Amino acid sequence: MAYNELGDLPLDDFRRVGHEIVDWIADYLDNTEQYPVLSQSKPGEIKSQLPDVPPLQPESLDSIMADFQDIIMPGITHWNHPNFYAYFSNTGSVPGILAEMLITALNVNGMLWRTSPAATELEEVTMDWLRQLLGLADGWDGIIMDGASMSSMVAIAAAREAVEGLDVRTKGMAHATVPQLRVYISEQTHSSLEKGAMVLGIGQENVVKIPVDCENGMDVDALETAVLRDIDEGKRPFFVCATVGTTSATGVDPVPAIADIAQKHNMWLHVDGAYGGMAAIVPEKQHLFAGVDRADSLVVNPHKWLFTPMDLSAFYTRRPDIVKRAFSLLPEYLRSAETDANTVRDYMDYGVQLGRRFRALKLWFVLRAYGQEGLIARLRDHMRLAQLFGSWVEASPTFERMAPIVFSTVCFRAHPQGIDDEETLNKLNEALMNAVNDTGHIFISHTKLQGSYTLRLAIGNIRTAESHIRQAWILLQKMLTHIKIDS
Amino acid sequence: MAYNELGDLPLDDFRRVGHEIVDWIADYLDNTEQYPVLSQSKPGEIKSQLPDVPPLQPESLDSIMADFQDIIMPGITHWNHPNFYAYFSNTGSVPGILAEMLITALNVNGMLWRTSPAATELEEVTMDWLRQLLGLADGWDGIIMDGASMSSMVAIAAAREAVEGLDVRTKGMAHATVPQLRVYISEQTHSSLEKGAMVLGIGQENVVKIPVDCENGMDVDALETAVLRDIDEGKRPFFVCATVGTTSATGVDPVPAIADIAQKHNMWLHVDGAYGGMAAIVPEKQHLFAGVDRADSLVVNPHKWLFTPMDLSAFYTRRPDIVKRAFSLLPEYLRSAETDANTVRDYMDYGVQLGRRFRALKLWFVLRAYGQEGLIARLRDHMRLAQLFGSWVEASPTFERMAPIVFSTVCFRAHPQGIDDEETLNKLNEALMNAVNDTGHIFISHTKLQGSYTLRLAIGNIRTAESHIRQAWILLQKMLTHIKIDS
Repeated sequence: MAYNELGDLPLDDFRRVGHEIVDWIADYLDNTEQYPVLSQSKPGEIKSQLPDVPPLQPESLDSIMADFQDIIMPGITHWNHPNFYAYFSNTGSVPGILAEMLITALNVNGMLWRTSPAATELEEVTMDWLRQLLGLADGWDGIIMDGASMSSMVAIAAAREAVEGLDVRTKGMAHATVPQLRVYISEQTHSSLEKGAMVLGIGQENVVKIPVDCENGMDVDALETAVLRDIDEGKRPFFVCATVGTTSATGVDPVPAIADIAQKHNMWLHVDGAYGGMAAIVPEKQHLFAGVDRADSLVVNPHKWLFTPMDLSAFYTRRPDIVKRAFSLLPEYLRSAETDANTVRDYMDYGVQLGRRFRALKLWFVLRAYGQEGLIARLRDHMRLAQLFGSWVEASPTFERMAPIVFSTVCFRAHPQGIDDEETLNKLNEALMNAVNDTGHIFISHTKLQGSYTLRLAIGNIRTAESHIRQAWILLQKMLTHIKIDS
Repeated sequence: MAYNELGDLPLDDFRRVGHEIVDWIADYLDNTEQYPVLSQSKPGEIKSQLPDVPPLQPESLDSIMADFQDIIMPGITHWNHPNFYAYFSNTGSVPGILAEMLITALNVNGMLWRTSPAATELEEVTMDWLRQLLGLADGWDGIIMDGASMSSMVAIAAAREAVEGLDVRTKGMAHATVPQLRVYISEQTHSSLEKGAMVLGIGQENVVKIPVDCENGMDVDALETAVLRDIDEGKRPFFVCATVGTTSATGVDPVPAIADIAQKHNMWLHVDGAYGGMAAIVPEKQHLFAGVDRADSLVVNPHKWLFTPMDLSAFYTRRPDIVKRAFSLLPEYLRSAETDANTVRDYMDYGVQLGRRFRALKLWFVLRAYGQEGLIARLRDHMRLAQLFGSWVEASPTFERMAPIVFSTVCFRAHPQGIDDEETLNKLNEALMNAVNDTGHIFISHTKLQGSYTLRLAIGNIRTAESHIRQAWILLQKMLTHIKIDS
C-alpha cells in the first residue's frame, strides 16, 4: 500500500475488511438499540476530531475503520433504529444491503440500455412488478428516480411540456407567448412541489395553496374557484397535485373530485404518494387510492415504507412520451445502434440526471426476499401498531390525538387537564419532544396543525415491533411529568 | 422466512450471504477480465428470463443470488473492467465499496444536520480536503451532488438567482419584468448544460453555442460578440460555462479570457471540470486550471476519475449564499433548534433533493486509503498511458490522432493509406468500433469532431495498466484488417 504502487488496494485487504464489515453490520443491526437514536453530538464536535488537511500518504483500512467507529458513529442519527419515528422512517433491510454491495461493486452507470442491458431491463421488470402490487392498470410506466423531490419536479416539467402550443423546452418561459403557468397544491402538500415549481421557473407566486381540513383533505370547491379565477385573469392552470398521505398528518386528498377538475380544465394531475402510496399494496387500503388511476403521474417511495435502502423513488406516469419530450437530449457521443433503431429504452431520456446507478437491483432483492404477502403483512402490522398507539393516546387523560390515523403515523400531543392555552400547550409539546429525543431512546418529530404544535410518531422501520412503541408511550408519559412550563 | 413472520430476515442469513458476496466481489474484481466488457445481451433477452408478475411468497436469498449470477450478470456492461475505455471510465474501488456497505447499513438521510451530524460535518471536511487537493483557495465551498448534470443545473439556477432585481424564485420567469435570460456554452460543452437550461425554463433558444477549435477551445471573440449582440437586443446574458476537459475531445476552454468577459458583463462563470477537473490535483497539470479561481462555481466528479463509486459529484461555489437563496425552503416539520439558531448547515438547502445519502463517507475512505500522493500517482500514470497509446497511434501508418491528449483520453481514428473520402472513413471507423466492442475484450466509444467519426479511448479505471492498453492497441490493429467497407 505504499503510495508509489498503482492499481487498487490488494484484494486480500478487501476480503479481510469486507468480512469484518459484514459482521459489523450484523452486530449493528442486532444491537441498534444500544445507540441513542438521535445523535447526542454537539455542532462542530465531529469536525473538531478530524484533520484540517487531507492525508498525504495512504492510511490503512484498519485505521479508517477505527476512526469510523470512534469519531463518525457518535455523530450518526440512527435511521435504522426501531425507535426512529421522526419524519417518515425508513429501512436499510437485509436484502437491500446485500443488493447495494453488488450494485457498488459493479458500479454500473445505466444511462443507456447498452451501458448495462440488465440495469435497464430489470428496471422495467421491477417497476412493472411494483405497478401490479400497487394495483395500477397496464399502461402505467415506471421510472426510478432518486427521491420524491425529483419525481415531483419531473412531473411538473412534464406537465409544462404537455401544455399545447407552448414549447417551453425550446422557447423558454420568458417568451412573449408564454402565459403565467399556475400550479395548484394544498396547504399540506409537501414543500418539494413548491421547490420544484421554483426551480423550473414557475415561481412561488404561481403556486396556489388550496386550504385543507384534516378530515377531508384539499377543499375542492376552493380549488375550482381558484382555477376559474386564474383563467379569468388570463393565467394558465396546468398542474395540480393531490396527496395520498400528507407529510404532516398523512391526510388524503379527494382524488376523484380533483381528477374531475383536472380533466375539465386540461391540467396534469400528479399524485404524491411518496409515503402513503405504498399502502396501496394492502388490499383493505386500496379504497384510499380511488381516482389515482385517472392521474397523469404518481410517486411512491420504496425507500420510505418498502424496506429499500436510500435512494429509490418510483415515478409512474401514463404519459411517458411527454416525460421523454421534456427531458430527452441525445448528443452524438451517446448514440448507439439500438437507440437509433428505437428497439430499447434509454432511461437517461426520462429525467435530469445522465448518470444512473443500478438501483433496480435492490428493489428486485426486496420484492423477492419478502414477497407480496410478506410486504403486505409488514405494512399491515405497522398500521396495526399505529392504531394501537392511537388507542393509548385516546384513552389517556393527558394526551390527545390530533388527526385521523390513516396509515402508520400518529399525530398527537400532550394536553394535560387544566392547561388550555394554545401557546402554553405548544411550548409544553415542544419541550416534551426535546426531552424524549434527548434521552436517545426514541426520536419523534413535530408539525403544526391549525397552529397547534403536534407530535408525530411515524412507524416504518422493518424492525419496529409492539414492544418498541410500548416503550415509546411509557417514555412520553414519564417525561411529561418532568416538564415544567411557565404558563 | 414464512410470509407471516414480521421483522427483517434473520441476521444469520445476512452474515452467511454477506460473506458470500464479499468473496464474490473479490473474485469478481480479480477476474473481471473473464467477462465481455460490453454486454453481449440482445434487446429483451434479460427481461424474457424474468417472471411477468411479482412473487407472492418470499424467495430465498440463495435463489435470488443464483438468478443474479445466471440472468443479471450476462446483461452487465462491466464499468469496473480495466478495458472499459468508453465515455469516461470510472471505478468501484476497494475503499469505495467498503464504505458503501456502511452507508447502506446506516441508511442515513442527511437532509438536516440533526438527522446525522456526522454526515453533514464529514461532508464539510471531505469537501474541504478535496478543495485543498484541487488547489482552490479558501472560500470555495463544496456541496456533494449526485452527478454533474445536477451540479450544472444548480449552477445555472444559482446564476439566475444572482441576477439583481429579478427574483425569479418568487415571480417566475413568465413575469413581465423578466427578460430573455441568455446562457453561453460552447459547441463542445456537455449536453447537461443545455438540459439544465431547458428544465429551468430558460429554453434551448436561449442557449448560445459558441464555436470552438480543438486546440484553443471556446472562441472568446465570438463569445463577446454574442454577448454584446444579445445586450443590444435587450436580452440578459447571465451565465457562461467554460469546460476544462470537454466530453468529446477533453479540450480546455480559455478560462482566464472567459472570466474577463464574465466579469465585464456581470455573468456567473461556471467551470465544468466533471472529468478533467480532477487533474488539478496533479501539480504539473495545475496550469490547465488558470483562471478557475475566478469562477463562481465548479464541478468535478470523484465518481469519474477519483475512484469513488457512483454517485458522487463535487459542486464548488464561492457564493454558497446565492445557492441557498435559490433552493432553500423550510417547512415547519423540518425546523430544528440548531437550524433556528443558525449554528449548523442543513445541506437540503443547497439543491433540489431533500433526501441525501451519506455520500461523504465513501469520499473519506477513498481520500484516506490512497492519500494525496497515491491519488496523484494513479492519475499521473493514466495520463502517461494515454500519451503512450497516442505515440503508438502517431507512429502508425493506418491510424491518426484527432485531438491533443491533454488528460487521459485519446481521440483517434483509423485512416488507412489510400482512403481519404470522409464518408468512407466515417463508415470504416464506426465498423471498427463495433467490431472491437463485439469481441467483448475492450469497450471504446465515439464522437464526431468536425464531422469526422472519431474513436475515444478514455483511461480512468484504477485497474487499467500498460498491458491493457497494449492489448487494446493490438486488437484495434487486428480488427481493422477484417473490416470491409464499400467505398
